[in-house]
Amino acid sequence: MRTVVVRNIPRIAPEVATRLAGHGVSTVHEAQGRTGLLKTYMRPIWEGAAIAGSAVTVLAQPGDNWMLHVAIEQCRPGDVLVVACTTDNTDGMFGDLLATSLKSRGGVGLVIDAGCRDVRTLKEMGFPVWSRAISAKGTVKATLGSVNVPVVCAGALVRPGDAIVADDDGVVVVSHAEAAEVAAKADSRAANEEAKRTRLASGELGLDIYAMREPLATAGLEYLDDLQD
Amino acid sequence: MRTVVVRNIPRIAPEVATRLAGHGVSTVHEAQGRTGLLKTYMRPIWEGAAIAGSAVTVLAQPGDNWMLHVAIEQCRPGDVLVVACTTDNTDGMFGDLLATSLKSRGGVGLVIDAGCRDVRTLKEMGFPVWSRAISAKGTVKATLGSVNVPVVCAGALVRPGDAIVADDDGVVVVSHAEAAEVAAKADSRAANEEAKRTRLASGELGLDIYAMREPLATAGLEYLDDLQD
Amino acid sequence: MRTVVVRNIPRIAPEVATRLAGHGVSTVHEAQGRTGLLKTYMRPIWEGAAIAGSAVTVLAQPGDNWMLHVAIEQCRPGDVLVVACTTDNTDGMFGDLLATSLKSRGGVGLVIDAGCRDVRTLKEMGFPVWSRAISAKGTVKATLGSVNVPVVCAGALVRPGDAIVADDDGVVVVSHAEAAEVAAKADSRAANEEAKRTRLASGELGLDIYAMREPLATAGLEYLDDLQD
Amino acid sequence: MRTVVVRNIPRIAPEVATRLAGHGVSTVHEAQGRTGLLKTYMRPIWEGAAIAGSAVTVLAQPGDNWMLHVAIEQCRPGDVLVVACTTDNTDGMFGDLLATSLKSRGGVGLVIDAGCRDVRTLKEMGFPVWSRAISAKGTVKATLGSVNVPVVCAGALVRPGDAIVADDDGVVVVSHAEAAEVAAKADSRAANEEAKRTRLASGELGLDIYAMREPLATAGLEYLDDLQD
Amino acid sequence: MRTVVVRNIPRIAPEVATRLAGHGVSTVHEAQGRTGLLKTYMRPIWEGAAIAGSAVTVLAQPGDNWMLHVAIEQCRPGDVLVVACTTDNTDGMFGDLLATSLKSRGGVGLVIDAGCRDVRTLKEMGFPVWSRAISAKGTVKATLGSVNVPVVCAGALVRPGDAIVADDDGVVVVSHAEAAEVAAKADSRAANEEAKRTRLASGELGLDIYAMREPLATAGLEYLDDLQD
Amino acid sequence: MRTVVVRNIPRIAPEVATRLAGHGVSTVHEAQGRTGLLKTYMRPIWEGAAIAGSAVTVLAQPGDNWMLHVAIEQCRPGDVLVVACTTDNTDGMFGDLLATSLKSRGGVGLVIDAGCRDVRTLKEMGFPVWSRAISAKGTVKATLGSVNVPVVCAGALVRPGDAIVADDDGVVVVSHAEAAEVAAKADSRAANEEAKRTRLASGELGLDIYAMREPLATAGLEYLDDLQD
Repeated sequence: MRTVVVRNIPRIAPEVATRLAGHGVSTVHEAQGRTGLLKTYMRPIWEGAAIAGSAVTVLAQPGDNWMLHVAIEQCRPGDVLVVACTTDNTDGMFGDLLATSLKSRGGVGLVIDAGCRDVRTLKEMGFPVWSRAISAKGTVKATLGSVNVPVVCAGALVRPGDAIVADDDGVVVVSHAEAAEVAAKADSRAANEEAKRTRLASGELGLDIYAMREPLATAGLEYLDDLQD
Repeated sequence: MRTVVVRNIPRIAPEVATRLAGHGVSTVHEAQGRTGLLKTYMRPIWEGAAIAGSAVTVLAQPGDNWMLHVAIEQCRPGDVLVVACTTDNTDGMFGDLLATSLKSRGGVGLVIDAGCRDVRTLKEMGFPVWSRAISAKGTVKATLGSVNVPVVCAGALVRPGDAIVADDDGVVVVSHAEAAEVAAKADSRAANEEAKRTRLASGELGLDIYAMREPLATAGLEYLDDLQD
Repeated sequence: MRTVVVRNIPRIAPEVATRLAGHGVSTVHEAQGRTGLLKTYMRPIWEGAAIAGSAVTVLAQPGDNWMLHVAIEQCRPGDVLVVACTTDNTDGMFGDLLATSLKSRGGVGLVIDAGCRDVRTLKEMGFPVWSRAISAKGTVKATLGSVNVPVVCAGALVRPGDAIVADDDGVVVVSHAEAAEVAAKADSRAANEEAKRTRLASGELGLDIYAMREPLATAGLEYLDDLQD
Repeated sequence: MRTVVVRNIPRIAPEVATRLAGHGVSTVHEAQGRTGLLKTYMRPIWEGAAIAGSAVTVLAQPGDNWMLHVAIEQCRPGDVLVVACTTDNTDGMFGDLLATSLKSRGGVGLVIDAGCRDVRTLKEMGFPVWSRAISAKGTVKATLGSVNVPVVCAGALVRPGDAIVADDDGVVVVSHAEAAEVAAKADSRAANEEAKRTRLASGELGLDIYAMREPLATAGLEYLDDLQD
Repeated sequence: MRTVVVRNIPRIAPEVATRLAGHGVSTVHEAQGRTGLLKTYMRPIWEGAAIAGSAVTVLAQPGDNWMLHVAIEQCRPGDVLVVACTTDNTDGMFGDLLATSLKSRGGVGLVIDAGCRDVRTLKEMGFPVWSRAISAKGTVKATLGSVNVPVVCAGALVRPGDAIVADDDGVVVVSHAEAAEVAAKADSRAANEEAKRTRLASGELGLDIYAMREPLATAGLEYLDDLQD
Repeated sequence: MRTVVVRNIPRIAPEVATRLAGHGVSTVHEAQGRTGLLKTYMRPIWEGAAIAGSAVTVLAQPGDNWMLHVAIEQCRPGDVLVVACTTDNTDGMFGDLLATSLKSRGGVGLVIDAGCRDVRTLKEMGFPVWSRAISAKGTVKATLGSVNVPVVCAGALVRPGDAIVADDDGVVVVSHAEAAEVAAKADSRAANEEAKRTRLASGELGLDIYAMREPLATAGLEYLDDLQD
């Protein structure tokens, strides 16, 4: 494994990020064809945050947060730091000091397939983190990893510069090339959902709105008056 | 597996549901002899809800929420939708659109041994859900399951029309036939607990209130002044 | 296994407990050389509590909370009840009645490598609990265990009288003999961190504050302008 | 929970058991419409056994094997002992002594949603066990459960007298009423599979044997010569 | 998600595959710089197989093995079928019929981040499989996926045509471009290890062979005659 | 955390080790009062080994096997190397080279709360290992730990010189001071079990041998002829 730091990465346009964050993870995930979702063990350390930004990626050793310090220098306003680990690990690689540093660089959040600590302070700072664990476990600074290389984070491939969208539903990655197109599709989808929401709220059934009765019957669904078992 | 929808199921009386919800999961679980509890991985997506209602059951395929649309038509005011899956799955089978539809039918909550999404919106709607995961993962509508058949949901057998009680402690099922009796036992238990709470708050020990000292001694418990190891 | 209750255990000084609680789990864990942390599955049942106190330990059988009643009699103001189990178990060994009793004895919190119930009431009482699960599962009172013997709780050795520190980051144990020294080290560490926080907030990089650039270069880290893959 | 032992239960015919065991878990599971499978964490303690028999069910407390002694008295030749637990538990409830006793009664195997020990001796005895864990953890005999009541074992409802089929693929339950019919369907299925096996072995493709090309095209599958990404 | 089948993919040279298989997973993983390892939950269904081949990749829906039939047509002698799933799933997507078909095409093994069944028959056939679960759970053929697109399988990125090496230690992927170079490095590494093995077997210590005493002392390691605690 | 290597530790007598190994984990665990068992995730990498020896302990960092090299120098004939990790980790810290070295020192086995690799070679060498995972993941040599300090390994406290007993049922630790006494109790227990085995094999019931009928009746067990539900 070469241990490198790549300086130049693409960024998504701020207005695309704003729209993606507004739509949220579930809508964006659907809009891009149901791909890009990180595993469900990635949870926000506090509820209510909703962000989108460009991924600055880190590949770290288990129990070693040296490369996070290296990565912060590469962050610009609007970036999301994305940390993958060479093996499953829950140590507290990130706390309030790193958050202070990342925030001062304009970083808008952290997605880490490892642990996070100082969660009460991070909540007070309003700094959002999605992690696989909350852990006070201290880490060493002994072994190199890489910054801004493609990584697999919580089961999803993330390349530097990809769009990261995160909220209470989890985290999704959108490839840099498709970010604007996905934002547009999410706009359409949201408009379409609003109309459906009104009809469903009025008591109309999804069975009718989506014309499901015929395909259900074709598939062989039987209706019985009572259960005989 | 026959794929059927059963139209007629029993319902528990609204005042029984109200009393069960008031007592909550732990008291109801004790009142019915410590049975009926769903596994502890079933957690509320937001805290503070406390419901009880009649189970409308769904058996779904992994990653497929077609039968949820079918089930909602069978729901009446006071019902709780209970979704089991033919295999372990965490996909986001239920979101704000289905919640809007279920709520408009009078459904009071969802218990799903799979994933749920749009959790922020669901919280804003005040629609309570207990699930094994929060996941934005989209689902297909391709394969039939059944509605209102007995299911094993998170380790507990649930029959259509059984009472479901859910709060921050988890989810418990009470058989339809025993719901009223269990509510009555829960009334007694709660009254009894109140008296104990007062005594315990005043400093009296459980050892004395429950007369445990003698059975502990009989069982062989030794008291030592100091630890020698 | 002898089944004993040890009456006399050491306690940490109240002002040491106050300082440890003030510093919190992550700082205390670092201050004592990155040891003593309980596994990350130990989570608070409600957020925001931060405590420290002397451990009164319990070794219980799975599904059996008899020894918790025994242990409460041994608790004094400032104590933290620490419950280990002879095997992995998530049953609801502790609820609002035991909390009322423990609180009336001056107990400041519970750390339990098993389940807890009545979590809404416990939150309303302001009684803090760290547990591996929330579970309404009722327990029996049939088999003896021990009180105030050394136990392994969630992967950490806890001796009676050790200091327990717990907050939103988790739980850490400090040996009784080292508690005062660790509090002093935590004081220093916190002061040191405050200075770093100010520098990091102003945009200074950890790479420079910690003088990492040279060791990173020595270790072989390469900087590239662009990713070629 | 009433704590009862039911003496009279139905049994499946020996020749039905023989046929079900011969077909194995996967074929039987398919033959009955893809139901009845126990969770995949249920694994044989040694490989190569393939059994079928009538379920004698046990509901036990965690860490307590008292009811296994009670249950063995109810076993007859051809029975399979099926042990469920009121809560998740991995303790070693069953070892070589109980196996000796069960074998002397004619029991043909054990399915236990808990732990098993003395696994080397059990293998030497040729006594097959499917369990969720191998554990030497000793158990108490303190709290009642029930024998021959319906139980949920590893996620599947098992009633006394149901057919249990178990082999290296896992464990499946067939309801008593359907056992003969399912055996017949399994016969047909096996015959059908044999023909397919021959065709597939000769190089014919499933795409053609099952006529999948047209539905795949209808569903929208595209063939590309090369990957452009 | 486009649902495509890509026909043309690169293959690794047979002699490279032979060498990689001969070195095995641990050596190849080290030789390529400690990358490419699939998660440790991927285990062989029978012990002793050791293979290497070119990856034909599948992205499947949970509980749906339709695309495996599609993929087999794309397999050539020496290929390893690699199945990823759009979400965590353990269903038995692959059994003896598919193995018969894949084997007749020259496929040398299966790596599947889901379940496998008919494991006894597969062992008798000598067909090796690495999976996350053994499960008899039947699957549907209802929803499209893709064949020969890049996938994340058990935490590792696999592109069509990459080299897959699998044995009792697990599974590792080597990029197509680097396969020959990695095989060469593995040759060197193996030769080097042989020399070390001889020295270690004779009683020489790794501390001396690897010259660790000085760096250990520099790092601050203390030797004590006795433990004082 | 001080990073130390302790040179002098007690050892158990070889004939005690031989007797403990002969009795095996389950009997020894019972003989010492049902304590000392390591968690059930600790499994042998190959079946059939049964060992006992004196513990040489290691506390290692995640993903770092430096201290294993240090520890091997401290091993003598009859020792069992016991490796704990400062945090959960499954990396392959131990393989055939370290096994060759440890074997040449007379080490009789490894118990590691982390991963192991080269498992096929270790089996061929007849070198027994109990681990939480099989993993080819390579480790670094960068951060100190300790040798021959008390450690918590897989949930059990192990002190240097304690007796470790391991077989197909798992791993148990016996304190150095009690090893001879526990061996004697295990002798008695084994003799006692042999008599019971004969009676059980002849068809006598545990209910009668252990005189359980009366306590069961006292506890309230009811016998019913038929199930009414």
